[in-house]
Amino acid sequence: MEAYQKLIPIGIIHSPYSKAEGTPIQSAYAEGAEDSIEILPEFWDGLSDLDGFECVWLIYFFDRTAYPRLKVIPFRDIIERGVFATRAPSRPNFIGLSVVRLIKIDGLTLRVADTDILDGTPLLDIKPYIPDIDSFPGSRAGWFDANTVERKIAD
Amino acid sequence: MEAYQKLIPIGIIHSPYSKAEGTPIQSAYAEGAEDSIEILPEFWDGLSDLDGFECVWLIYFFDRTAYPRLKVIPFRDIIERGVFATRAPSRPNFIGLSVVRLIKIDGLTLRVADTDILDGTPLLDIKPYIPDIDSFPGSRAGWFDANTVERKIAD
Repeated sequence: MEAYQKLIPIGIIHSPYSKAEGTPIQSAYAEGAEDSIEILPEFWDGLSDLDGFECVWLIYFFDRTAYPRLKVIPFRDIIERGVFATRAPSRPNFIGLSVVRLIKIDGLTLRVADTDILDGTPLLDIKPYIPDIDSFPGSRAGWFDANTVERKIAD
Repeated sequence: MEAYQKLIPIGIIHSPYSKAEGTPIQSAYAEGAEDSIEILPEFWDGLSDLDGFECVWLIYFFDRTAYPRLKVIPFRDIIERGVFATRAPSRPNFIGLSVVRLIKIDGLTLRVADTDILDGTPLLDIKPYIPDIDSFPGSRAGWFDANTVERKIAD
């Protein structure tokens, strides 16, 4: 199988989470935490016009995941699922995706909130969050919806 | 700068778009087109439980983009923007992100709609679209919002 170019970091994510156990599962559950992202100086020009966006996508590298697995038991679940039906880190290309609120850009530092990412994680890309193309509030979410229903019943 | 592991394709995206000119800018604008994604057999197990999701994220490799640029003029715009404030392909790691509607899974073939991706594009990852963590319908979208307002005024 052909392999593509090597990934390079464009920055480093700083957060209070140093190990997976204390990390919120996804960013929408991490409200209140303010974290920072240090962009490497050579990518400075790429940040222009980003400050007008309320939310941004972070694409990052799961650098502390040892190997990919195609079946995983997601956090808060008890059933093994296909990895592509989960947001678990043990994926073939170890690529993570989270939306965060962009609070402020100070030079090369992005102040962000609602991060769910381990401290020191290498950042691969930033993309603007555009509700017209990214937001599907009512869309069906398979096993995740079913679990939410079960949790609500259990409460 | 340290480089990470090489990316590997998990599948190939098939679409009617063979060159950038005819390609919709983002998937929400490509309504009606039904495309297919061929997953490589070795990743079969990872597809379990995906069929319950109405929308999925595709993470893919912009394989026909020659080199990264930090400033780009987005399609439908006339002003140069920082690449991280756009969804343009000429990004440092050439990683693309689109949400598509998942119509059906036939073995290793995913039937999807609303694709905006070039035919033959290597797929790197699939993630489930989970509205609770991915959907922010009202969030401010910087220059993109401003352009939409201008277009509406022009009509």
